[in-house]
Amino acid sequence: MLFQSSHASCGLTVYETSRGGCVGRLQASFRYLILQVEWQPVHRAASQLRVVEFKAKEPNHTCGELCWSHVDEEVTLCGWVQYLRQDLFVILRDFSGLVQILIPQDESKSELKNAFLGLTVESVIMVKGRVRRRPEGQENKKMSTGEIEVCAESMEVLNTCRKLPFEIKEFVKKSEVLRMQYRYLDLRSPRMQYNLRLRSQMVMKMREFLCNLHGFVDVETPTLFKRTPGGAKEFVVPTGDPGKFYSLPQSPQQFKQLLMVAGIDRYFQLARCYRDEGSKPDRQPEFTQVDIEISFVDQAGVMSLIEGLIHYSWPEDKGQMNVPFPSMTYEEAMRDYGVDKPDTRFGMKLVDVITAFQGTQIEFIKDALLKPGGCIQAICVPEGTVRTESVSVAPVRADGSLKSPLSRLLSDTRPLLGKLRLQCAELLECYGVPVRDPSVFHFLWVVDFPLFLPKEDDPEMLESAHHPFTAPVPEDAHLLYTQPHKVRGQHYDLVLNGCEIGGGSIRIHNASQQLYILDTILKEDPSLLSHLLEALDSGAPPHGGIALGE
Amino acid sequence: MLFQSSHASCGLTVYETSRGGCVGRLQASFRYLILQVEWQPVHRAASQLRVVEFKAKEPNHTCGELCWSHVDEEVTLCGWVQYLRQDLFVILRDFSGLVQILIPQDESKSELKNAFLGLTVESVIMVKGRVRRRPEGQENKKMSTGEIEVCAESMEVLNTCRKLPFEIKEFVKKSEVLRMQYRYLDLRSPRMQYNLRLRSQMVMKMREFLCNLHGFVDVETPTLFKRTPGGAKEFVVPTGDPGKFYSLPQSPQQFKQLLMVAGIDRYFQLARCYRDEGSKPDRQPEFTQVDIEISFVDQAGVMSLIEGLIHYSWPEDKGQMNVPFPSMTYEEAMRDYGVDKPDTRFGMKLVDVITAFQGTQIEFIKDALLKPGGCIQAICVPEGTVRTESVSVAPVRADGSLKSPLSRLLSDTRPLLGKLRLQCAELLECYGVPVRDPSVFHFLWVVDFPLFLPKEDDPEMLESAHHPFTAPVPEDAHLLYTQPHKVRGQHYDLVLNGCEIGGGSIRIHNASQQLYILDTILKEDPSLLSHLLEALDSGAPPHGGIALGE
Repeated sequence: MLFQSSHASCGLTVYETSRGGCVGRLQASFRYLILQVEWQPVHRAASQLRVVEFKAKEPNHTCGELCWSHVDEEVTLCGWVQYLRQDLFVILRDFSGLVQILIPQDESKSELKNAFLGLTVESVIMVKGRVRRRPEGQENKKMSTGEIEVCAESMEVLNTCRKLPFEIKEFVKKSEVLRMQYRYLDLRSPRMQYNLRLRSQMVMKMREFLCNLHGFVDVETPTLFKRTPGGAKEFVVPTGDPGKFYSLPQSPQQFKQLLMVAGIDRYFQLARCYRDEGSKPDRQPEFTQVDIEISFVDQAGVMSLIEGLIHYSWPEDKGQMNVPFPSMTYEEAMRDYGVDKPDTRFGMKLVDVITAFQGTQIEFIKDALLKPGGCIQAICVPEGTVRTESVSVAPVRADGSLKSPLSRLLSDTRPLLGKLRLQCAELLECYGVPVRDPSVFHFLWVVDFPLFLPKEDDPEMLESAHHPFTAPVPEDAHLLYTQPHKVRGQHYDLVLNGCEIGGGSIRIHNASQQLYILDTILKEDPSLLSHLLEALDSGAPPHGGIALGE
Repeated sequence: MLFQSSHASCGLTVYETSRGGCVGRLQASFRYLILQVEWQPVHRAASQLRVVEFKAKEPNHTCGELCWSHVDEEVTLCGWVQYLRQDLFVILRDFSGLVQILIPQDESKSELKNAFLGLTVESVIMVKGRVRRRPEGQENKKMSTGEIEVCAESMEVLNTCRKLPFEIKEFVKKSEVLRMQYRYLDLRSPRMQYNLRLRSQMVMKMREFLCNLHGFVDVETPTLFKRTPGGAKEFVVPTGDPGKFYSLPQSPQQFKQLLMVAGIDRYFQLARCYRDEGSKPDRQPEFTQVDIEISFVDQAGVMSLIEGLIHYSWPEDKGQMNVPFPSMTYEEAMRDYGVDKPDTRFGMKLVDVITAFQGTQIEFIKDALLKPGGCIQAICVPEGTVRTESVSVAPVRADGSLKSPLSRLLSDTRPLLGKLRLQCAELLECYGVPVRDPSVFHFLWVVDFPLFLPKEDDPEMLESAHHPFTAPVPEDAHLLYTQPHKVRGQHYDLVLNGCEIGGGSIRIHNASQQLYILDTILKEDPSLLSHLLEALDSGAPPHGGIALGE
């Protein structure tokens, strides 16, 4: 948050924060883009954009764009005083970068010199001057404008700056609290400038792809809405009418389905969503998702669209990106990685070592194998990293023998081994063993989720694995009436480097099937969704969609 | 609202509704675009957009795009049954338009024929068939696909439709309540489809102009925020912490100013805003504005940018639009039109007829003239419409003589005459006299507003004419300390055909000037805005902006 607030200390919603900060899921994906690549100067991307200028009084150039081709030109620059050097130079900064201003040393210009020397850092000034090549040997190769400097001819202080609580420098480590309190100072750093500008550009490319190339219609849906049954806890907004409240929606799910019924065959929106669940590292009370819904489409169609969308909007400086993305069933993901959002940048898959224990005398293993479906799972740390045994992070050896701490975990082996696998990777990396290449982006589809799961507090009952609007896989539909727990849903998750960055489904468009699922299977009160059931009965087309950053 | 709700019966926020419905100010401008021009078929604009296709199972064509060049082609179409005709034809509709499907009459295809004849209107079907030229003499020139028809070879019912509460036809007048309750049916009408798609395209052009051509950064700002002093009543959102509430912001005003302090020199956002003031024809509890802020800019720069923006995003089918827009001072607007948002599509200006009454014996006029600043104003209905005297709508004759009902209104003549002027225009139009050309768009800047106005309930005190962050006109700044009521603000309103569709200002960037205005002039508690004052003191650049649809 730009201001102090116990609940919403999360900054302008889109801003990347340091690790452990509050970053929504869409942000999580952007964080990947941003944190794991080499630093790129801001000005390259940004200054290219200034194609057409509107009439602004000042300035006529940006700091970062100046180079040898501007030599001898008279320029007007506006920016912030980064620092003074040797009473000779002011380093001036704007969004595009830094430039060196030469303070006149001439006696006749002592007034101007004194004005420069009296500047506090981060004050805002306007400088007029002439660009010149720096004297030989004084070039700065590390600075994009390091070949030139601007000989100041006049200077106006537009605003003076007080003593700040921290310096605007990349290498000054600031506490998270201080960064949040003085968000407007934190955002002046090149890194934060880059992140904000990259997000804006990437979102723009997505809009071009959807709106201009594929005829999607950008529709804004209301955020003052009524309560949605089930799902996350919702924020309420009291109305002037006592006892009546709006709800802030968790997603535009119902609206977008109704837009399909309304004949808006291709809908998208960058939708603000709300969940009253407090802040976690990857959850914020408000967040934004790229929300998409399409009529007359199947699962392959949605997946293909999203691959095209990401490919099109992918930042050039992040390297090659390949489509289509690989795909994996939920069953395979759980079997091989112990999780439904596997990080496929590295191996160390879960393996079944049951054959190694045929006829074992180890009691707890014998017991486990006697149970129905009993098995023995292990993580295989491959040859290349076996040397890490010396740092004791591999509780399961490549040969399959088990270390004792695992004995307590046998009951729910896979998810636990899945977590262990990730912790192994982290530990190995802490000790300098490369496991995950930070510059690669492994996208992955996970499909064929179960449509229902046993309720946690009442395993006899079923609840929706995602939400009650997901359509069954057609060949499983007949099982709805006999063995609903065996039905797979037409649901797909998009996973990036072990983070779920999107999810969607083909929806139910048949009112009686929707009613059966709500009423008979989920035992929910269908009257709460009567408006949706009525809409499905009013000529609803088959439809499906996805939300990125959900 | 898509669903019934007493408070939020306003539909998806962007939707144009019929007169008297709930339309926000941004919408008001779109409504102008939409209501006052001839109806354009949807498919032209929309079908051009389908440049690149992603892999979707079905269909391979849209209804509205078919023409003679598709003759003999095998096509798959998905859409809604518009109606059946003579047991021979089904008229199929999708977003792009209508096409005629020929039901096979062959005995061997009686099953298919019966399936067609059993269809209810608005059911969703998939048809495969071959395009053929209609037999000679059977072409329909009124239909864009009227040269061809599709001979059905197979048909699948994707969803059947119940009996609907109203028909999806332009000419069926529906009540506002029914349209709101069944929004998904209302939106199927060509007019609503066109409106939604036009808005999406126009907004996309605006984004291109700002983001791609001018290097603006699209930044999302939080909507869960703290209370802003002054202004409209805000919605509150209770937190989990008893007694603590978020506020839903009326606008991102503070955020965008802080972004300027943060060095985001060109910011824009399509921002959702909230006002807890109930629904009026031109006010909704939530609405969207095009929010813009720029560093190192002056009033002329902002105005020029907006002219460029509107020119660039102007729909082709709305005719020529000229920039720059004319400009008028607040004083001129009040003097000539009696209002600060004059409809300049027609004359009938307020004129001073004081000379005609020199030496008059009419008592109340004599009295009025004796008062300080006393004057006589009249509306001049020009020659061309003087014939409307016969329908008694011109209370003031062109020769300047006054009708008696005006005598009671002399105390606050201009705003009242301003309203009268508009009512005259409406009345004249009711009687068929053309006054305002419904196809023209008169944009107008109104500038040089007073910075402060006397408070309504305490005229000794001053309040901000717009908001307390507006900077004074530089040459008036010294009057702040002596005659603040005489200070003009660097505020500008954009007016279209008598509607205020935008407003903005150059902001105060000097902390001590901001403090003086809050504390000494407005007598507000400056501690409520201490974060902003602190930010202005931390190297705030000069900046200004605007909001369209405010």
